Amino acid sequence: MKEKLEELKKRLAVVNDLERAAGLLSWDQQTYMPPRGAAARAEQLATLQKLAHEHFIADEIGALLNDLADYAAQLPYDSDEASLIRVTKRDYDRAKRVPPKLVEEMARAASLAFEAWQRAKAESNFKLFQPHLEKNVELRIELANCLGYKDRIYDALLDQYEPQMTTAQVEAIFAPLKQDIVALVQAIARKSDAVNDAVLHREYDVHKQWEFGVQVAKSLGLDFERSRQDKSPHPFTISFSVNDVRITTRLNPKFLPSALFGTIHETGHALYELGYRPELERTPLAGGASLGVHESQSRLWENIVGRSRGFWQFWFPRLREMFPEQLADQTLESFYRAVNKVAPSFIRVEADEVTYGLHIMLRFELENLLVERKLPVADVPDAWNAKMQEYLGIVPPNDALGCLQDVHWSYGDLGYFSTYLLGSMFAAQLYAQAVRDVPTIPEQIARGEFADLLTWLREKVHTHGRKFTLDELARRVTGEPLNARAYVAYLKTKFGEIYGV
Amino acid sequence: MKEKLEELKKRLAVVNDLERAAGLLSWDQQTYMPPRGAAARAEQLATLQKLAHEHFIADEIGALLNDLADYAAQLPYDSDEASLIRVTKRDYDRAKRVPPKLVEEMARAASLAFEAWQRAKAESNFKLFQPHLEKNVELRIELANCLGYKDRIYDALLDQYEPQMTTAQVEAIFAPLKQDIVALVQAIARKSDAVNDAVLHREYDVHKQWEFGVQVAKSLGLDFERSRQDKSPHPFTISFSVNDVRITTRLNPKFLPSALFGTIHETGHALYELGYRPELERTPLAGGASLGVHESQSRLWENIVGRSRGFWQFWFPRLREMFPEQLADQTLESFYRAVNKVAPSFIRVEADEVTYGLHIMLRFELENLLVERKLPVADVPDAWNAKMQEYLGIVPPNDALGCLQDVHWSYGDLGYFSTYLLGSMFAAQLYAQAVRDVPTIPEQIARGEFADLLTWLREKVHTHGRKFTLDELARRVTGEPLNARAYVAYLKTKFGEIYGV
Repeated sequence: MKEKLEELKKRLAVVNDLERAAGLLSWDQQTYMPPRGAAARAEQLATLQKLAHEHFIADEIGALLNDLADYAAQLPYDSDEASLIRVTKRDYDRAKRVPPKLVEEMARAASLAFEAWQRAKAESNFKLFQPHLEKNVELRIELANCLGYKDRIYDALLDQYEPQMTTAQVEAIFAPLKQDIVALVQAIARKSDAVNDAVLHREYDVHKQWEFGVQVAKSLGLDFERSRQDKSPHPFTISFSVNDVRITTRLNPKFLPSALFGTIHETGHALYELGYRPELERTPLAGGASLGVHESQSRLWENIVGRSRGFWQFWFPRLREMFPEQLADQTLESFYRAVNKVAPSFIRVEADEVTYGLHIMLRFELENLLVERKLPVADVPDAWNAKMQEYLGIVPPNDALGCLQDVHWSYGDLGYFSTYLLGSMFAAQLYAQAVRDVPTIPEQIARGEFADLLTWLREKVHTHGRKFTLDELARRVTGEPLNARAYVAYLKTKFGEIYGV
Repeated sequence: MKEKLEELKKRLAVVNDLERAAGLLSWDQQTYMPPRGAAARAEQLATLQKLAHEHFIADEIGALLNDLADYAAQLPYDSDEASLIRVTKRDYDRAKRVPPKLVEEMARAASLAFEAWQRAKAESNFKLFQPHLEKNVELRIELANCLGYKDRIYDALLDQYEPQMTTAQVEAIFAPLKQDIVALVQAIARKSDAVNDAVLHREYDVHKQWEFGVQVAKSLGLDFERSRQDKSPHPFTISFSVNDVRITTRLNPKFLPSALFGTIHETGHALYELGYRPELERTPLAGGASLGVHESQSRLWENIVGRSRGFWQFWFPRLREMFPEQLADQTLESFYRAVNKVAPSFIRVEADEVTYGLHIMLRFELENLLVERKLPVADVPDAWNAKMQEYLGIVPPNDALGCLQDVHWSYGDLGYFSTYLLGSMFAAQLYAQAVRDVPTIPEQIARGEFADLLTWLREKVHTHGRKFTLDELARRVTGEPLNARAYVAYLKTKFGEIYGV
């Protein structure tokens, strides 16, 4: 069996190498590639992805996984070997269920839809995008039927991004959460003048912004011997090995939070990817457990740490040293409040911590209706605007600020959005546990020390790579299934104090 | 047959995509990769190269090439189709002759030899490198025997870098050339005080150096929509498609020529790779014909253009505007002479245009003796020093400045060096023809206009990609086989005038 396991790992290493190489092609495309290089790059990426897929779904891998099933069953659930075989089998079965023709068709449709979406958004004309979204929805329904599901068709789509999470589970968590958030938003709305964030919109030299961001990233634990930051139009994190994980940021001279919190957010993703045990390298266990768990790491650092009063106790004097003019009229307190201003707004990626969840729930609900064929695509704009009115009390003046704002549906990524909110919830659940385990963490943060928190996350979450699902991790680390209690408590305490509600 | 040709091209496109992707991994490693990323990167590169090789030597490709042989024979020699089949067959037969085990052994030996060479050079201790060079030489003898040759064992090695060039051909060209160069070097030596290049060793701000280099590269015709320049320890050019060819440079604040002529040199390589017909994309014809032809392009731009009086007529005032203090005491004439100073020196890559050829001949001769087992590796330092004394009248004080200076032998790249000098020769032969065809080219250069020269090179050389060998190109473009006449005339005229000899 040891030999079969070695053979399996050898084959998976080739797949991993191809995927990482494709990743580098994509990183380069978003950072340094000359504009005219795009056409050839698309061919190269397609070839690498096709080869990675072919090598992964090879019958030999299926046979090895079958041969190893009994062996794995005798091993501890959380051992490297049992986890490798279990997770690989899950990926393999899913990959095998999707006909190559459907994969191709989805890719082609997404590519056309992305082009159409760009135009539709620029012109704020949903009609241009509608036939493409219809096609994408149809193909995702077909995909879900290939993948299979027990209860709800949306389960099959959600499972791609958040393995083994079900629609019913998400609904059970979101329903009461929505009540709590809507109530909080309404209470804050009545005191909206309590916070002024004009300071964030002053002019900030982008080179200094960059320098400050790098200082913060390093202090959080990002090792620039194993990482680097580059510029790209859309910030992202990408991993080429446990010793080469890169982040990107974008710089806006007129809006300080863009680069600053962007860098902290991506640093959170990167610290996760830098933290799995090196023994998992070149296997399907090398990486983050799911999108939700990944988002828990980025949001824990960005919001729970990076927007905390303690964090700014240490960093505000340093930021003011770098931008003495811009921050001359600010106190720690006024700046802390500014970066935590809450206000209903149209754009999800610019939303504050409190309203953010409502943007997600809206999308999650619409996606369910779409794939259950209860909402015709043509009615999406109306349905979107009705929910915006209901949850946030505002209606977008056009679809560019409404249902056309996100790129996800153009790629056909239905099932993706909820992982953002699951991540925020899990971040709060994890942080509460971390402080129970190491009560000095908040004081350390106020001294600019993050090592104990990082060590705790490494040991509890990062080290396992993809071994466990989000819910498994929640139970192992906090003794509870994934739930919104810590998240609601966090929001109510923090914003209750800021707004006096 | 059309279908078989399409099938062949489809398979070759996959090979090409894998090779280009491997190229990007290598580019990244030399430019932006965090230091600790090296170990995983080595695995990823090895996987891509192995897959590219496996896909290329597939029996299906051999069968298609056989099936297409008669078809190709009926087509014009220089047609895309006939050339594709001819060049691919040449590559395929060579790749098939080398046992995978030998490829692996050479790679492993090279990797160890490279490490040993770095130490040996740092300590100037040839004994540390000697056993590794012995191993590399033995493996290259074995390789040559696998590849096969008619006349001289060195032919098989030379052919890897300069297809179909023979040792006898090179010797027939080098022998009289050596006489001419040695005589010129001796004549110049008697007037060595005629040129002072102290100006080049002043302090030059590296950001301004970068800016000036980019200005020059753009004016030569490098399109930054299809190219870019980055920094790397060793300058190089690399191509990811006909619309994405990148150069690198290194900046030395105390030596102006390093970045300046480095950028022009790499721009020459890049213009070549940007110039093949787009129809050749993703085939083995996409790229430069050989190392010698490549070097003809880089050296034509670097030396014949970039170190010409006309070039500096236009650019010297601009350079002085950027560096007014450093160049205050310079005239166009003194600066032109400074960048053309001739003096025997130990290090090949720092050699002037005149002495450069002697550095190459020395290596070419020693390599021949090594693979013919007429020179034991242990005797290389003595043989090296004796030839330095004979050709240049100087003896390196240690082996770091002598036989340990170049990286090539550590990689096992025997047969490579002569392509540098063949390139210089071909550059002169091409340029003489270009001026015969377009007599205004020198005046244009003096006005900072390079479009006609580039157009001529595009049409005569670049457009063909890898269709023709160096000698075929020489005959097609200049009506003569490759020869040193234009090169000797160029050196004698230019340096005769500068030194009054």
